[in-house]
Amino acid sequence: MKRLAATVLGLGLGLGLLSACQPVLRGTGDLGLVVERADGRLMVVENSTSTKLASVSGLGDLSHAALVYSRDQRFAYVFGRDGGLTKVDILSGAIAGRVMQSGNSIGGAISQDGSLVAVANYTPGGIKVFDAATLEQVADIPAIGADGKASKVIGIADLSGRRFIYSLYDAGEIWIADLTDPKAPRLTKHTNIGKLPYDALITGDGRWYLAGLFGEDGIALLDLWNPDKGVKRILDHYGKGKEALPVYKMPHLRGWAVAGDEVWLPAIGHHQVLVVDKGKWTEKARVDVAGQPVFAMARPDGKQVWVNFALPDYSKVQVIDTQTKTVIKTLEPGLAILHMEFTAKGERVWLSARDSDKVVVYDTETLAPVAELPAVKPSGIFFTSRAGKTGL
Amino acid sequence: MKRLAATVLGLGLGLGLLSACQPVLRGTGDLGLVVERADGRLMVVENSTSTKLASVSGLGDLSHAALVYSRDQRFAYVFGRDGGLTKVDILSGAIAGRVMQSGNSIGGAISQDGSLVAVANYTPGGIKVFDAATLEQVADIPAIGADGKASKVIGIADLSGRRFIYSLYDAGEIWIADLTDPKAPRLTKHTNIGKLPYDALITGDGRWYLAGLFGEDGIALLDLWNPDKGVKRILDHYGKGKEALPVYKMPHLRGWAVAGDEVWLPAIGHHQVLVVDKGKWTEKARVDVAGQPVFAMARPDGKQVWVNFALPDYSKVQVIDTQTKTVIKTLEPGLAILHMEFTAKGERVWLSARDSDKVVVYDTETLAPVAELPAVKPSGIFFTSRAGKTGL
Repeated sequence: MKRLAATVLGLGLGLGLLSACQPVLRGTGDLGLVVERADGRLMVVENSTSTKLASVSGLGDLSHAALVYSRDQRFAYVFGRDGGLTKVDILSGAIAGRVMQSGNSIGGAISQDGSLVAVANYTPGGIKVFDAATLEQVADIPAIGADGKASKVIGIADLSGRRFIYSLYDAGEIWIADLTDPKAPRLTKHTNIGKLPYDALITGDGRWYLAGLFGEDGIALLDLWNPDKGVKRILDHYGKGKEALPVYKMPHLRGWAVAGDEVWLPAIGHHQVLVVDKGKWTEKARVDVAGQPVFAMARPDGKQVWVNFALPDYSKVQVIDTQTKTVIKTLEPGLAILHMEFTAKGERVWLSARDSDKVVVYDTETLAPVAELPAVKPSGIFFTSRAGKTGL
Repeated sequence: MKRLAATVLGLGLGLGLLSACQPVLRGTGDLGLVVERADGRLMVVENSTSTKLASVSGLGDLSHAALVYSRDQRFAYVFGRDGGLTKVDILSGAIAGRVMQSGNSIGGAISQDGSLVAVANYTPGGIKVFDAATLEQVADIPAIGADGKASKVIGIADLSGRRFIYSLYDAGEIWIADLTDPKAPRLTKHTNIGKLPYDALITGDGRWYLAGLFGEDGIALLDLWNPDKGVKRILDHYGKGKEALPVYKMPHLRGWAVAGDEVWLPAIGHHQVLVVDKGKWTEKARVDVAGQPVFAMARPDGKQVWVNFALPDYSKVQVIDTQTKTVIKTLEPGLAILHMEFTAKGERVWLSARDSDKVVVYDTETLAPVAELPAVKPSGIFFTSRAGKTGL
């Protein structure tokens, strides 16, 4: 009897400990988040065996939401369209903090050292910077252009040493904010860079910042290793002489792909992907594709570029071989493919099929589907391998 | 009294739970291991605030030890000089498994999908392949060269799709083992690649495999996107016409640095680092340095290359600016600098000073030391950000 009691007690304690020890101890290298945009919810997933681990609700308006990871990969900072900045603990599947920081945010970045999170705002414009640990606001930097007006901010990325780079949509400027001393941010401004920069990217090495210009045919380029040389224009009038097509969806430039010494980018309004020589910054080739490209993303080894499309072709995905510069396969993974995310070493890619309410996983060698996860109106997919990469 | 008892009980339970819940729940993105070679011990460290978290003992002979990480970053697979393969749980700071797999191992690799760990052996030569979860041996592939003799294996790296590439030191061959079906490995052999390949690397994109030839002045190069073109020789006779210096320590090729479109590599026996055009594979420049280089490692952004040296200059470290190709600083961080490891985004570098019994952390912008950790005869330093990278 005594023995039984001890066993029962042991069992009870065991269960108690188990439950107290939740969430499970595990590495964070193969984790990720999938945005369920309509419900303001995130799915926590792992990509080793393609399973869902948890759901996190209460994130507000997640249409067009983006996120970045803490340097230890435990936390995600989610930038919501409602101006909410939410810190999510992906190991416990819980919200660790949330602030309403503006009226309308479009993206953000985390500093190289992981200490600061910067949010780029549409309304009222400018950036706000927060302590990554506490979400306490440490800086508020309006974006008043040379024209004296407040501007939307887009295309924000982290640079070395607590610096952020971003573009002023309305003013046509590129700014760098140095927050070495968060109480006294130092600003460097490049003005007259061109009309309406709509998105931007930084190359993975942190050297080249490219802002796509919606107001004119071309790209503004800044060499961050030689910023004194200023912003120059590349691919000027790349659409010249062609009939301009209505633009159904703005391409995303963070999806621009760097493969070896080539940059692959969606030609806005055209059914083409442009191949640009990295370094010379001249057009090298064009590849015809099935629709208006939205994301052109390189498999991590640069051997393939995967492309998704705007309406009405947004249920197709095309795979381009970068050596031959030809489309090697057209896939139809589901309805309304909004985003693609490669695993760290690139053996698989996850695709969100919004109108099929699922995420589909493809093997990137066989180009065949290998797994599927139900998800409610999925959009962005973000794996933790982004934590170690500049600009992601 | 009842209340007090309940409090005490609660406290007891709380402590019990805490202890049962050890180790602490945390992300693994900023973790790493430092080899304490003389004591067969590893230090578990984190690089956000530069602290030691735990020690793991009982790993056998760790002189010249190397390791790779599981794709979830929780486990390290440590390749010991005594032929031991040890699986270490870095979250709990404990050994999760250990097998004696050969007489003498020099390194290993983990497959792209994380399912297989391959060990390259000196004695008796060849590779052995293990299940990454259980450490059960799944394949044993001898390295019998075209000359009919067993060969040491060096320079092993993971390729796409459960394949490994490695070089046969004695036979002068490069082999690729495809373990899609581990019971029936398929081998592709490139023979007559040159004399005595002593180490090799694969570029981060997985495209180029370079094996340094100790038996002759030059490098064997294989384009893995076009393997039918075979192995070609590059940098033939790069030391020609110069007085050959005695080689105090073989350079490590895994440390070869790819910075933009340049590959930086230690010139064996010479006080120089070579700069090679990536793609054309011709020599572009040479930079004179303070001694015989061992590692030439690029900061993740490619803007700097850090170099350490063989005896008698092994207490110096030089920092080269890759744009100007000049040494911008000579550091003396401690005695006998054996290894260097950058944080994922490159804001800091950790250096092991074996004979000073410490690890020193430098800020890579100011080039000043910012932290120091005591360590007993430290050698290799490995951060978990390697988990997502091909060839590391």
